Amino acid sequence: MTELNDTICAVATRAGGALGVVRVSGPDAIRLTDSIFRSASKHPLASATPYSLCYGQIVDGDGAVVDDVLVSVFRAPHSFTGQDSTEISCHGSAYILQRICRLLIDAGCRQAEPGEYTQRAFLNGKMDLSQAEAVADLIASTSAASHRLAMNQMKGGFSRELRSLRDQLLQFTSLIELELDFSEEDVEFADRSQLEQLALQIDQVIGRLADSFSTGDAIRNGVPVAIIGQTNTGKSTLLNQLLHDDRALVSDIQGTTRDSIEDTTTIGGALFRFIDTAGIRQTSDTVESMGIERSYRKAREASIILWMTDEAHPADVETENKILELSEGKHLIRVHNKCDDASALPQPTDTDVWISAKYGYGLQQLNDLLVKAAAIPQISDQDVIVTNMRHYESLVKAQECIRRVRQGLKDRISGDFLSQDIRQCIHHLSTITGDITTDDILGNIFSHFCIGK
Amino acid sequence: MTELNDTICAVATRAGGALGVVRVSGPDAIRLTDSIFRSASKHPLASATPYSLCYGQIVDGDGAVVDDVLVSVFRAPHSFTGQDSTEISCHGSAYILQRICRLLIDAGCRQAEPGEYTQRAFLNGKMDLSQAEAVADLIASTSAASHRLAMNQMKGGFSRELRSLRDQLLQFTSLIELELDFSEEDVEFADRSQLEQLALQIDQVIGRLADSFSTGDAIRNGVPVAIIGQTNTGKSTLLNQLLHDDRALVSDIQGTTRDSIEDTTTIGGALFRFIDTAGIRQTSDTVESMGIERSYRKAREASIILWMTDEAHPADVETENKILELSEGKHLIRVHNKCDDASALPQPTDTDVWISAKYGYGLQQLNDLLVKAAAIPQISDQDVIVTNMRHYESLVKAQECIRRVRQGLKDRISGDFLSQDIRQCIHHLSTITGDITTDDILGNIFSHFCIGK
Repeated sequence: MTELNDTICAVATRAGGALGVVRVSGPDAIRLTDSIFRSASKHPLASATPYSLCYGQIVDGDGAVVDDVLVSVFRAPHSFTGQDSTEISCHGSAYILQRICRLLIDAGCRQAEPGEYTQRAFLNGKMDLSQAEAVADLIASTSAASHRLAMNQMKGGFSRELRSLRDQLLQFTSLIELELDFSEEDVEFADRSQLEQLALQIDQVIGRLADSFSTGDAIRNGVPVAIIGQTNTGKSTLLNQLLHDDRALVSDIQGTTRDSIEDTTTIGGALFRFIDTAGIRQTSDTVESMGIERSYRKAREASIILWMTDEAHPADVETENKILELSEGKHLIRVHNKCDDASALPQPTDTDVWISAKYGYGLQQLNDLLVKAAAIPQISDQDVIVTNMRHYESLVKAQECIRRVRQGLKDRISGDFLSQDIRQCIHHLSTITGDITTDDILGNIFSHFCIGK
Repeated sequence: MTELNDTICAVATRAGGALGVVRVSGPDAIRLTDSIFRSASKHPLASATPYSLCYGQIVDGDGAVVDDVLVSVFRAPHSFTGQDSTEISCHGSAYILQRICRLLIDAGCRQAEPGEYTQRAFLNGKMDLSQAEAVADLIASTSAASHRLAMNQMKGGFSRELRSLRDQLLQFTSLIELELDFSEEDVEFADRSQLEQLALQIDQVIGRLADSFSTGDAIRNGVPVAIIGQTNTGKSTLLNQLLHDDRALVSDIQGTTRDSIEDTTTIGGALFRFIDTAGIRQTSDTVESMGIERSYRKAREASIILWMTDEAHPADVETENKILELSEGKHLIRVHNKCDDASALPQPTDTDVWISAKYGYGLQQLNDLLVKAAAIPQISDQDVIVTNMRHYESLVKAQECIRRVRQGLKDRISGDFLSQDIRQCIHHLSTITGDITTDDILGNIFSHFCIGK
């Protein structure tokens, strides 16, 4: 996929709208588009000024008109990919879009792989890797917050912050490596207490970035909420009630989602991801026990736990202890269900709410508690928030390295060991921006894009 | 909706692709787009040459960047609508597309009604009504044949043919009306036998166009096939088998469809629309009888009837007669189901096929029979085929009028009566091309478009 010398084409819009766009990029983009284009002005695209539109028709080999189109012409390096490119704006029918692509392929184009456009932009130095990844997030953004995060990342704030860390680390390690060159003389160019100070600071910045991932992940994929409780406490009924109000909204994002969407909904502007769990009860059935064990495991992944109870059938002490243990470090909201007398609903507290899932009583109060528990901070234009699992993992690895450096400085280990850890830390940070890449990393990143991007 | 002096905006692509497009059209299109656009070159759109692209960013009131975009600039009358227009090409996220529209509306645009772009093109004389209607068909086209039909109509072949008819009729009626001016002198400027000849010719042309509707409708909406038979003969199993192979293709056109798509599939390049019917049996249950009556009614709308039978449980004579009666003038294919021994399948004839819906035996033979029965002619670039119900109805009315004229000529009725029928015939033909329109007709036509077109 890292081939740059062939010319690729792809449908860049979803079929079924009024308009559709087919993109072509590569050394032969303009010539190959010209070969299926009959310009209304009779001038070929080859003579068109960059950043201009040409009106005409796409015609097939028999001269039959496929569609009336507008072709945008871009010339290297002033295009999204940095290559000669065209964009063919046609009617949005699936048939027409596919037909135009087919004609381009017959003329000599290659069907683009998912993400290949953005990959070309990256390989031609139009954007770094974290910015390229933000493009995919931008396309998938469904809320103001997720859009702002992707936009911030695309503007390069995250990359700038990482580059600044890397520059400091490089300075750091060059001093230490200089000492190694003079190792026989036992000199110290690098002031150890200053180095400790710098390592602490870098540790803190990386830590802050890594910590922001839970916020980023909550914004992008929803705050994970596990609904847990004994069998027959009304978990599914509640889930339906919670999802019901925003069903339309949920279906709006269909097709854009990375994982199952049935359980995602927006409450008070924040995205929540509800995790359904099997009902808990004492059982000797092995299969059922496994289901219950899975419920517990899912609850551990959640940041909010809704503990459904039914006053008439209180949980046994063992279950209660288990749930309390699971909830440590999480927001636990005890949902007292089956309060079917609306006039007798107790006022909610910070940890308890009384509802009737069946009749929909008390749901507003529960929603309010959920929004409060989620506590997603307002994101400003300047905030750097990590939303990408790959970035998060690199940051965690970089932090491990910098902590080894700090420990090494304390233990006064030799410069060559220090230098090795610092180099590793730089490596992990560089994989985020793409200053160091492998084909594996690239293939994995761009294959998650949609085709045409 | 016939207001032309305000500036409209709409999302023109389906959300979720790599790219998305927002369209703006109207006297203030360029100024209003400029108000939310920050050009990379610092030059405002107002100074851009027509048919050029400007790179920059869409910014909201707080200066926050919504997206990096390319704006195409068009100036009246050289645009799709004939008005000043812009097209904002952004990333394809639902959020971004909606946000840009919202900013445009806040700036003073009005959200476009469905079809309002094409309506403006029509009102500004960029295309006639039947061509405008072809735009909607073009967007919805899902097969080579339906695309070719829409393209032919858009190229105006249909309109040309209708205009030629109308011109002949006008000549016809002007001669007759000239006679009326001299009615006291009892002259005949119009040679009656020549008139009869012309009326016959026009009758034939209108008839041919009206007759092409069944082909056009079959191509556009699928050949209607009713599966009918007694209860438990395996109708639903067969339906699933028939739809199964092309499920992927079916889901491709989701969202583009005018009616339920679950029952549409492409076999041998032709679109079939399968009509499920309730199983037939003798019953005294009123509700069930109504269901069976409905089955018969649906079968009457079909052009092909698949009569499912099960050798082990033959239909009673009454049902058999009923089905034979229903099938008059249609293609009847008797499908002998439950032939579960693949090695013992009889060879199909033109009217009979032996299958096992359960195991999928004999389905290829059934498909072949269906394609043969559908007998959709190959459509060339030059063919004029009526695909639109509104056009068909106008043609039928026009034909009624011209037949009254022919009868009138035979009966030697007076010129003023003849003239009245000819005028009515002209009127009906004119409603197709839009030379005569009412707000009702326009509203009805364009409201079936998607927004942004």
